[in-house]
Amino acid sequence: MTDISLFDAIHSQRAIRHFSADPVSGEAITTILEAAIRAPSGGNRQRWSFLVIRDRETKRRLGQWYFETWNALASAMDLDSPGGQPYRPSMLTDGMEDIPVLILACQERPAAGFGPHPITSGASIYPAVQNIMLAARALGLGTVLTTLHTQHEQDVKALLGIPENVDTAALIPVGYPAKGRRFGGSKRNQVGEVTFHEMWGQKAAQ
Amino acid sequence: MTDISLFDAIHSQRAIRHFSADPVSGEAITTILEAAIRAPSGGNRQRWSFLVIRDRETKRRLGQWYFETWNALASAMDLDSPGGQPYRPSMLTDGMEDIPVLILACQERPAAGFGPHPITSGASIYPAVQNIMLAARALGLGTVLTTLHTQHEQDVKALLGIPENVDTAALIPVGYPAKGRRFGGSKRNQVGEVTFHEMWGQKAAQ
Repeated sequence: MTDISLFDAIHSQRAIRHFSADPVSGEAITTILEAAIRAPSGGNRQRWSFLVIRDRETKRRLGQWYFETWNALASAMDLDSPGGQPYRPSMLTDGMEDIPVLILACQERPAAGFGPHPITSGASIYPAVQNIMLAARALGLGTVLTTLHTQHEQDVKALLGIPENVDTAALIPVGYPAKGRRFGGSKRNQVGEVTFHEMWGQKAAQ
Repeated sequence: MTDISLFDAIHSQRAIRHFSADPVSGEAITTILEAAIRAPSGGNRQRWSFLVIRDRETKRRLGQWYFETWNALASAMDLDSPGGQPYRPSMLTDGMEDIPVLILACQERPAAGFGPHPITSGASIYPAVQNIMLAARALGLGTVLTTLHTQHEQDVKALLGIPENVDTAALIPVGYPAKGRRFGGSKRNQVGEVTFHEMWGQKAAQ
């Protein structure tokens, strides 16, 4: 295990979409998932499951669906990043079968549903997803949080035997970054632009 | 800043619901929010805003709504944790105004909506929320991810002047843990119980 500091891990995390062929050990995946399950979940219910996919044919099918959705959205939506760089194809859209590991983060739906507020339905799974990505970063492994597979969720669930009452929240590729792909340097708006004090819109602390 | 390792922070994070009266500096909050904005967001759109609340009357009102919802749910739902310990009242339900800081993590709704899959609407805000909680942990500050305020979301938004097209994803109390409240020791099911390989239900790696 590595002893990278929390702040170094957080500040150097960035989406990696190009991976080397170097294998990812089962021990690394276990370390990553041990981090995942330390995340909070509502009422400590831990409705999560993590499906680890290495099978090449499964990855190829997931990649096909991902590409179809990406292609449809790329023409319908503005996928340019705020920094002005166009969204470029990657191993997600072209070569997902060559990514060493995919982790599919799943969450069982409560019998009563999630209530009236859809956003909170992810409150007990994406903290675990973030722990996965930070732990991977600490091990030198790249990841990227993807959700496009949900546009084909019924196909994905049928392929993987996932029960009806389980949602697939994120598909996370895991691998060592390809040559020339480095951690760090993600572009963000400054904290002062997105922080308010006491009331919406109020930028200075009282 | 502290150099706690990523894995130490992740493995010792736990919900803190009882806080000391020790003040939390503006610098600490900035460090925490600098970590928040390093989290990934779909298309790097960063639709997040963070409302920092120290005003006692605002905290009291938020606490009242929290208590009302908690009270209603506690009688309607099974709030016992898997470990068998009953859910106990805390400063969330009784004394929120005495918690030094509340951070309300907000997310602007895209004009086109979030699409058909509600769970993914939280994919670009809860990773930032997890960074907030981990960064707080690194600074020795306790937090807990709460969402009950969303049952009174219109009231909360009116109180704080939050626009209609912005959702409130999490209300996160921040403070030094009260005497006797310690990090670490959260109960979790084992990784082997929630990890599948290649297909749902398959526990052994191929």
